[in-house]
Amino acid sequence: MSYTFSRALAGMTGTATRDIFKLLSRPEIISFAGGLPASDCLPVAQVGEITAEIFADKKEALRILQYGTTEGYPGFRELLGPLLKEVGIAGMGLDQLLVVSGGGQGIDLMCKAFLDDGDAVLVEDPTFLGFLETVRAYNGKSIGVRADSDGIDLNDLETKIKQHKPRMLYAIPDFSNPTGKTWPADRRKAVAELAAKYGFMVIEDDPYCRLRFSGTPVPSIKSFDTDGRVVYISSFSKTVSPGLRCAFAAGSSEVIRKLAIGKQGADLHSANLSQAIVKRYLEKQYFYPNIEKSLPIYRLRKTAMIDAIRKYMPSEFKYTNPDGGLFIWGEFDAPVNTVEIFKEAIEKNAAYINGTAFFADCSGSNTLRLNYSNESPERIEAGIKALGEVFKGHIARGG
Amino acid sequence: MSYTFSRALAGMTGTATRDIFKLLSRPEIISFAGGLPASDCLPVAQVGEITAEIFADKKEALRILQYGTTEGYPGFRELLGPLLKEVGIAGMGLDQLLVVSGGGQGIDLMCKAFLDDGDAVLVEDPTFLGFLETVRAYNGKSIGVRADSDGIDLNDLETKIKQHKPRMLYAIPDFSNPTGKTWPADRRKAVAELAAKYGFMVIEDDPYCRLRFSGTPVPSIKSFDTDGRVVYISSFSKTVSPGLRCAFAAGSSEVIRKLAIGKQGADLHSANLSQAIVKRYLEKQYFYPNIEKSLPIYRLRKTAMIDAIRKYMPSEFKYTNPDGGLFIWGEFDAPVNTVEIFKEAIEKNAAYINGTAFFADCSGSNTLRLNYSNESPERIEAGIKALGEVFKGHIARGG
Repeated sequence: MSYTFSRALAGMTGTATRDIFKLLSRPEIISFAGGLPASDCLPVAQVGEITAEIFADKKEALRILQYGTTEGYPGFRELLGPLLKEVGIAGMGLDQLLVVSGGGQGIDLMCKAFLDDGDAVLVEDPTFLGFLETVRAYNGKSIGVRADSDGIDLNDLETKIKQHKPRMLYAIPDFSNPTGKTWPADRRKAVAELAAKYGFMVIEDDPYCRLRFSGTPVPSIKSFDTDGRVVYISSFSKTVSPGLRCAFAAGSSEVIRKLAIGKQGADLHSANLSQAIVKRYLEKQYFYPNIEKSLPIYRLRKTAMIDAIRKYMPSEFKYTNPDGGLFIWGEFDAPVNTVEIFKEAIEKNAAYINGTAFFADCSGSNTLRLNYSNESPERIEAGIKALGEVFKGHIARGG
Repeated sequence: MSYTFSRALAGMTGTATRDIFKLLSRPEIISFAGGLPASDCLPVAQVGEITAEIFADKKEALRILQYGTTEGYPGFRELLGPLLKEVGIAGMGLDQLLVVSGGGQGIDLMCKAFLDDGDAVLVEDPTFLGFLETVRAYNGKSIGVRADSDGIDLNDLETKIKQHKPRMLYAIPDFSNPTGKTWPADRRKAVAELAAKYGFMVIEDDPYCRLRFSGTPVPSIKSFDTDGRVVYISSFSKTVSPGLRCAFAAGSSEVIRKLAIGKQGADLHSANLSQAIVKRYLEKQYFYPNIEKSLPIYRLRKTAMIDAIRKYMPSEFKYTNPDGGLFIWGEFDAPVNTVEIFKEAIEKNAAYINGTAFFADCSGSNTLRLNYSNESPERIEAGIKALGEVFKGHIARGG
């Protein structure tokens, strides 16, 4: 039996993320490959308490078990205002908000709504590999834009805009996946202005902004959007629970309505129970205190990883030192192929993810992403030590 | 601000389903427009008990709140075998099963995996409007195949296959939405054979098979599939709870793997808590007893609607009398435009859904779908009485 798959999916035979999750299931592996929030920070007791309350209220339980509406569980979107205000987005009406089943669904719906075959999409190079795959699934074309230590390079961005006439720009301006970089406010403002000037959409993907353990918050790109060009997507996956698949998109009412139509064909509505849980979690004021409790854990783990990198990794390894989020990005100033060396690392029970999957053109074979959020400081040190030996040995043997 | 949406979504400005849900929120309306399972049958107490058990087990709760795997919550797919055997599908391995966020997601992923621009898809005329919309969203082309009282017409099917060289056929062979018709076994077998002969895929959408209150079960199309051409999709929306968004697809491992890749870009994985609830619901043997308790309610409501139709609807109204599922389909042998009359019906506080949205070519302006599952026999009689007056008056005035 041989199948003729669609052009969109024919070439996709598996993904890096998929392989990551398989690796994570082996307990002996110290994994820096994933992107999981710290399991220690997941609010098991609070969510347990909330579900008990929900099912004690028969009327609410009934509403949860029956079909819901595509836009969101009743009363949930009303609570998103304060979260948006925090990143500089004020006055969003309910018709400008859509609940989605994880930030990834928000991205997918944006591609569904705006991409036709062969359309160009600009991304900061490197960027979230899941986005690059989604663009492929819509037969779009991702074009990488150069970046420096402060994120996207505005000159290269404008050059690429003129050259490729993109339909969209995708950005994670806070603690980017995979680099951990944060864009300063002036670049965000400039991007919003360029979107208005040249008439393209911006997907601002912001799952990590509340995981800031140092430095000062920066307003969102959306906060500078005067033209309805930016759709801001944020998720509760890193602040409450990823397993609930609960996130939201904020944009102009016209775009949000189109995303809702797309969502109706995708999953009709997000799981009501997940939404009802997050709603009560916000109402009961569990949201900020739990983040406050989590931040020292994330800071400790990041610091442990930076310390271990300094101690064990070869001097040819250059790396970012983020103020928040989940990831450190590394690059070798040496002929090191992180794709090939991965197998050797796994044999030493340490996993990273090679950087090529994060580049629009699959370059970056000397790069890697390290996740520090879901391992203890001790295991972080042991894992980086193992990686250091692997890479040092490799460089000593001449690459 | 004007947006250039993708060709796929540009023409979609709202949907019938969307409007249905808005109508349902007005309590004075007796609605036969929706497709909701009976709220009385939703297992509120059992799901409450199950969530309490889940959160009493800290390890399981932690696993639920963390990211899950795309294929499904651990241990859940293992329980689907008996449900599949019931419809004649034996020996499915775990790699042939994928959990999806509602049957609609299964349909969407099949289109994503198999449809390119302009590809033809065959459907029994009339068919589920959500499928027609999904095909549009992939720039595919739905072609209606004639049907008689036993479902799809095999001669017209083979003619249309030769004429349109379809990539897929979509079917709801048990208590079809919208008609309530059930295909006999020989047609199912013939469809599986035609799929193998002409090399197209079959989406067998089977959300209703367990809502059979009379007659004898018929084996699935998939049970006759020797060639890996049929993907069987079933949902817990009508047997446990639609709000959980929990369903599954069964097919060859190669196709299921492709659907999983598509799902990874759609929502990464279905909400863990929803899956864990249905898993325990099956383990605790709540599934069949709750259906047994529900069937008399569905039977009673259907009978109430048939009785009321006989009593109040004009003699020009021809209708199906299903053995299960949620819907009765009606057709006027008279110049009655159900699209135009809808407003008048709503003024009388009774809602149906006009049939045009269920036809591939938007014909059927003399048809309508009636849902009986979520209203009491008393309200069913009152609603059909109101509709009968509206339609009789219309016919008396000469259409």
